[in-house]
Amino acid sequence: MIRIGIIGYGNLGKGVEKAVNAAEDMELIGVFTRRNKESVHTISGAAVYSVNELENFVGKADVMILCGGSATDLPKQTAQYVKLFNTVDSFDTHAKIPEHFAAVDAAAKESGKIGLISVGWDPGLFSVARMLFGAVLPDGNDYTFWGRGVSQGHSDAIRRVAGVKDARQYTVPVQAAVDAVRKGENPVLTTREKHTRECYVVAEEGADKARIEREIKEMPNYFSDYDTTVHFISEEELLKNHAGLPHGGFVLRSGATGENKHLLEFSLKLDSNPEFTASVLTAYARAAAKMNAAGECGAKTVFDVPLKYLSDKDYGYLIAHLL
Amino acid sequence: MIRIGIIGYGNLGKGVEKAVNAAEDMELIGVFTRRNKESVHTISGAAVYSVNELENFVGKADVMILCGGSATDLPKQTAQYVKLFNTVDSFDTHAKIPEHFAAVDAAAKESGKIGLISVGWDPGLFSVARMLFGAVLPDGNDYTFWGRGVSQGHSDAIRRVAGVKDARQYTVPVQAAVDAVRKGENPVLTTREKHTRECYVVAEEGADKARIEREIKEMPNYFSDYDTTVHFISEEELLKNHAGLPHGGFVLRSGATGENKHLLEFSLKLDSNPEFTASVLTAYARAAAKMNAAGECGAKTVFDVPLKYLSDKDYGYLIAHLL
Repeated sequence: MIRIGIIGYGNLGKGVEKAVNAAEDMELIGVFTRRNKESVHTISGAAVYSVNELENFVGKADVMILCGGSATDLPKQTAQYVKLFNTVDSFDTHAKIPEHFAAVDAAAKESGKIGLISVGWDPGLFSVARMLFGAVLPDGNDYTFWGRGVSQGHSDAIRRVAGVKDARQYTVPVQAAVDAVRKGENPVLTTREKHTRECYVVAEEGADKARIEREIKEMPNYFSDYDTTVHFISEEELLKNHAGLPHGGFVLRSGATGENKHLLEFSLKLDSNPEFTASVLTAYARAAAKMNAAGECGAKTVFDVPLKYLSDKDYGYLIAHLL
Repeated sequence: MIRIGIIGYGNLGKGVEKAVNAAEDMELIGVFTRRNKESVHTISGAAVYSVNELENFVGKADVMILCGGSATDLPKQTAQYVKLFNTVDSFDTHAKIPEHFAAVDAAAKESGKIGLISVGWDPGLFSVARMLFGAVLPDGNDYTFWGRGVSQGHSDAIRRVAGVKDARQYTVPVQAAVDAVRKGENPVLTTREKHTRECYVVAEEGADKARIEREIKEMPNYFSDYDTTVHFISEEELLKNHAGLPHGGFVLRSGATGENKHLLEFSLKLDSNPEFTASVLTAYARAAAKMNAAGECGAKTVFDVPLKYLSDKDYGYLIAHLL
């Protein structure tokens, strides 16, 4: 049995709890929280500990799955906890991945553990697709589209606008752009041409909706480079129609071998982004345990993992049934 | 530079020649043939040798890409040539993969070489998708559809019917079945419900077309389990409209994490099946060279290969740009 611990118990941590409990080759040793541990009640009844108790679990856990956020939690936590345990995280700030990798690599090489970073669906499965597609079709172009789905970062950004009580933001791929790529036209696409942003906003009573809409649409980085639509709705409607966290997207590669054209596509359609991400983290936790048992250490990414390590099936089964 | 040799110079070998010549980190040392070497003229002007000269190239080639057929060539060739070189083959008789793996593994472990078997798009990229999808979404069902595309094995089978001068067979996925899977209905599908077979046949002058059609439709293994349509066309029309070897297909996994449903899909649309397969073989030849240089030997499959080895880019570039 692979012994798994969960650090952080939000949506992602709850998803990992479900995935680990469903895996026949894994055992959940507990959830670790920065909060008062008496205040945290796990869905499956898994034990709850304070992160201050982590040192007591050295030798009792094979992998810690880190379920904190990329903005402030993971840049500190992964390099810290990989000193004691193999870790898997979902660090997803693309621009800062090399920096995160270097910090985790130094700590992991010192401890002899594996720190598998940036696991999920993007980065993660989409990275696998980009890597594989580029290698087998070197003369071509990559396209990644996200959505239709809820962006939690953009929803949070809207909530920070004065007068906004709650909000949900959907990232939506532009169908004409997707169609042009699928037709092999190899278009050069601007940010605006690839995605639109749909915002569902609950305003505080008496708030100036025109100002809210303007502030959202003009927000740099988040919205100003996109065609953005803002819909004001009631709190009741938000809870009724926008409670879920669906997401998805696709990676396309359009290219050629000489005169012959080829199109490769990988797509996801997810009812729950955090639950699916948790399921991916859990499969890669299995790989981290196996790679470390095979003598490997240091920071790793999905590019380092032989796919056989993701499965709980033996190799003979895999080549007979899946190859 | 990775030094590559090609054994066998049909459609697949010609595709590998093109792919290797396009790769900046590879050098094509020559094409090896069982035919009279004077009779073989390569497209790029690459040197042609007899397979009997292979022993002279020990230490002068890093990987031999085997471009023979799965029926009779590869079961003998791979285990034989892996005694001298790292090899990559496209062995695609799914039922016999375990047997082929065992034979290649024994020979490769003795020689200290790598024999990377069953590389292409199915087995190969589709196997990667099935493996990855099953691991990250364990509660679900797999579906593999092929086509619309030319099946060379089925085209050959039709050509063996008395009175048939030439033929082309297209494998076509049944749209209703694909739609049901994409909707998350998890249908149980028979062979007949998944694919149809379209045959374009040039009959010899005076041949009994009704008998030919009957013999095709009743042919066991190849056609009797499918809804098959037979179109008699002129040789001219065959050459004009059916000269290419397009293919494609998709791997779907439909599953759930608890109550939330998810759909994963990987698809290919290829203008030239042999050229794309050749491009995949070439990328995996790079991986075989790197894995052997890292000290690994024995039979390997796409499940053993860390994806980073497929690329000619360095790791820093990969994590900064593709992760």
